[in-house]
Amino acid sequence: MRAVRTRVAVVGAGPSGLLLSHLLHTQGIDSVVLERRSREHVESRVRAGMLEQGVADLIRQAGVGARMDREGFVHDGFELRIGDRRHRVSLTGLTGRTVCMYGQQELVKDLIRARTEAAATLHFGVEDVKLHGLTGDAPVVRCTIDGEPTEITCDFVAGCDGFHGVSRRSVPASALSVYEHEYPFAWLGVLARMPPVASELVYSAHERGFALYSMRTESLSRLYLQVAPDDDGSTWPPELIWKELATRLGPDASEVLRPGPILETSVTRMRGFVAEPMQYGRLFLAGDAAHIVPPTAAKGLNLAVGDVRTLAQAFARWYSSGDRGPLDEYSATCLPAVWRAQEFSAAMTWLLHRPADSTGFTERLRRSRLENLVSSRAAATEFAENYVGVSRDRIAGS
Amino acid sequence: MRAVRTRVAVVGAGPSGLLLSHLLHTQGIDSVVLERRSREHVESRVRAGMLEQGVADLIRQAGVGARMDREGFVHDGFELRIGDRRHRVSLTGLTGRTVCMYGQQELVKDLIRARTEAAATLHFGVEDVKLHGLTGDAPVVRCTIDGEPTEITCDFVAGCDGFHGVSRRSVPASALSVYEHEYPFAWLGVLARMPPVASELVYSAHERGFALYSMRTESLSRLYLQVAPDDDGSTWPPELIWKELATRLGPDASEVLRPGPILETSVTRMRGFVAEPMQYGRLFLAGDAAHIVPPTAAKGLNLAVGDVRTLAQAFARWYSSGDRGPLDEYSATCLPAVWRAQEFSAAMTWLLHRPADSTGFTERLRRSRLENLVSSRAAATEFAENYVGVSRDRIAGS
Repeated sequence: MRAVRTRVAVVGAGPSGLLLSHLLHTQGIDSVVLERRSREHVESRVRAGMLEQGVADLIRQAGVGARMDREGFVHDGFELRIGDRRHRVSLTGLTGRTVCMYGQQELVKDLIRARTEAAATLHFGVEDVKLHGLTGDAPVVRCTIDGEPTEITCDFVAGCDGFHGVSRRSVPASALSVYEHEYPFAWLGVLARMPPVASELVYSAHERGFALYSMRTESLSRLYLQVAPDDDGSTWPPELIWKELATRLGPDASEVLRPGPILETSVTRMRGFVAEPMQYGRLFLAGDAAHIVPPTAAKGLNLAVGDVRTLAQAFARWYSSGDRGPLDEYSATCLPAVWRAQEFSAAMTWLLHRPADSTGFTERLRRSRLENLVSSRAAATEFAENYVGVSRDRIAGS
Repeated sequence: MRAVRTRVAVVGAGPSGLLLSHLLHTQGIDSVVLERRSREHVESRVRAGMLEQGVADLIRQAGVGARMDREGFVHDGFELRIGDRRHRVSLTGLTGRTVCMYGQQELVKDLIRARTEAAATLHFGVEDVKLHGLTGDAPVVRCTIDGEPTEITCDFVAGCDGFHGVSRRSVPASALSVYEHEYPFAWLGVLARMPPVASELVYSAHERGFALYSMRTESLSRLYLQVAPDDDGSTWPPELIWKELATRLGPDASEVLRPGPILETSVTRMRGFVAEPMQYGRLFLAGDAAHIVPPTAAKGLNLAVGDVRTLAQAFARWYSSGDRGPLDEYSATCLPAVWRAQEFSAAMTWLLHRPADSTGFTERLRRSRLENLVSSRAAATEFAENYVGVSRDRIAGS
């Protein structure tokens, strides 16, 4: 049995765990990061791709934004198609903010490189992680690293291991309130080798269902189609996917949407999930371990970064002054922003998707909401404030 | 059989029929108004009580606003209670507009007096109204007036006789598309003899359900409680009504809410309804004959006035220049504003009411929406634009 001592044991090497470990390092706080999957796996996992400006700024300030600034696409607006009509929503015009398109796996690569260069302790392929003594003063994480049983004694555990991770499941059920919601929608996601066909994201509220075009790199695009929630993707040969994308993305889409090889398809069911509180004793949950949003507003990664920023500040306060207040307040600090993101994700989802059980009445309400969004500056501003994250910053700052 | 000739036969002497007849009169266009109920009935029917500034302005410009200006309460904001917290929404600060509290029955009295003084043909207690020849050039309204069978030949029929009236039912089902929605809410409405206890409307989103305080005159108040949709009101003795109002209207409500005699209680189920198009041949539907909104946003009367303004202008164009374009476009002109009002009424209803089947998740989304409304100027502006009618004026003006 190998014995290790660290200040913060970070479970999970996704963007939240890695960023937390990095932010702690910049404050002189050592941590150990434990990841179940291989480094190759986490560096190639295609997930979210949109960073709010505030999140991109944090990454820059943390000194890990150089490649993001070189290779990311900064967008100051997006296109919204309502049926055959095209509208542009100017994020900078409405809020003064931008978003940055940069794949989550690229950020993960940058963070792993930065952590490795700092000689940080990162373990991949870690098995049998178990958390002990969370309500005491010295929690213990037992696991198997490179085949060797290991016991990590720490001051705190950061649960950054996603929805299916061990961290949240280590909290007694009686200590957590769980809030869940299933949406009657799913996305068929396609990763295709093709250059960008638009300079900004294109969201389409088409009568046949929602579609989204997004670019990832100069040679990769990510496209999405609303499908039935029980669709497993097997009935979508490539030619049908391209045909449906061209239909929903509008009359001019077929001219620019030159089908490229599809590298990957996946189906994502849409749901919302929040566990409250986001802490238990000396365990603090961050990102998907504590909450899941439907992907429509791309808030998952941005929320995770918000959690981690709050948590890193709270740890810094504890280690610099012994003040446990911010740690005790961690969940209460994060949750209003979490629910703001949940609410906006829900609103944007219902705005853009056509439910199978829609009626003429509900569809006309939805159409009126879309029309109001593109004709009322106040409505567009409220939407944009949520889209770029200003509404959550306002909560965090108050 | 008495034979009458007029230009426009107006079915219904509610605010829309009376205002239409008055507006036509100011353009030199004669009309006959037919009302099934007695004058006393329509003058005492307690309904909506909030006029958007644009609607109040129209009433003023039409020369029937003198008493409204003397006795109505002009409000430049309202109070929103979220749980125990009080927020003020400044309508003028956000939109530059006000609303005027003036009971619908008072407006009806003013319009009847103006019409009577102009020696207009108003018939009350009219029975057996039937519409004929709507697709021809000279529709005929057959009815019984003061016991005498009467045949009114006209150029056009204006159906202003409400949801249950004969006008919409005279259109073949195949010529109408009907959109309906039932909300899982009802209001227990109370008319009480008591002076105003607040200077503005008070909307309360309480965990026990919605409540609303509104004033009508210096001695009459109207209060509402959200009740179950199948509640018939019989289980609400006065003392329980006052207790529940005090609870939902907040911790300080019991100090100011001195119970007065309850003159009337009623239960209103909430639903939305739109018939498209709002015209058939030479019949034009206006107000509740064409659409019903839930009462939350008090849009019913305001929408009706919007219809009637559009219709009066279209008739004026026809009679002055023979141009039938605006009449042909009547429904298409009105409907976007109708759906805007439906959508806002739905949004405000879902924002303020607690559904019986709410979950922790959906209630937290609703709470976040309420918090955003009182913390984001953009969100408050979008709400206020709809509340005062600016959003519909924008549609009508485009």
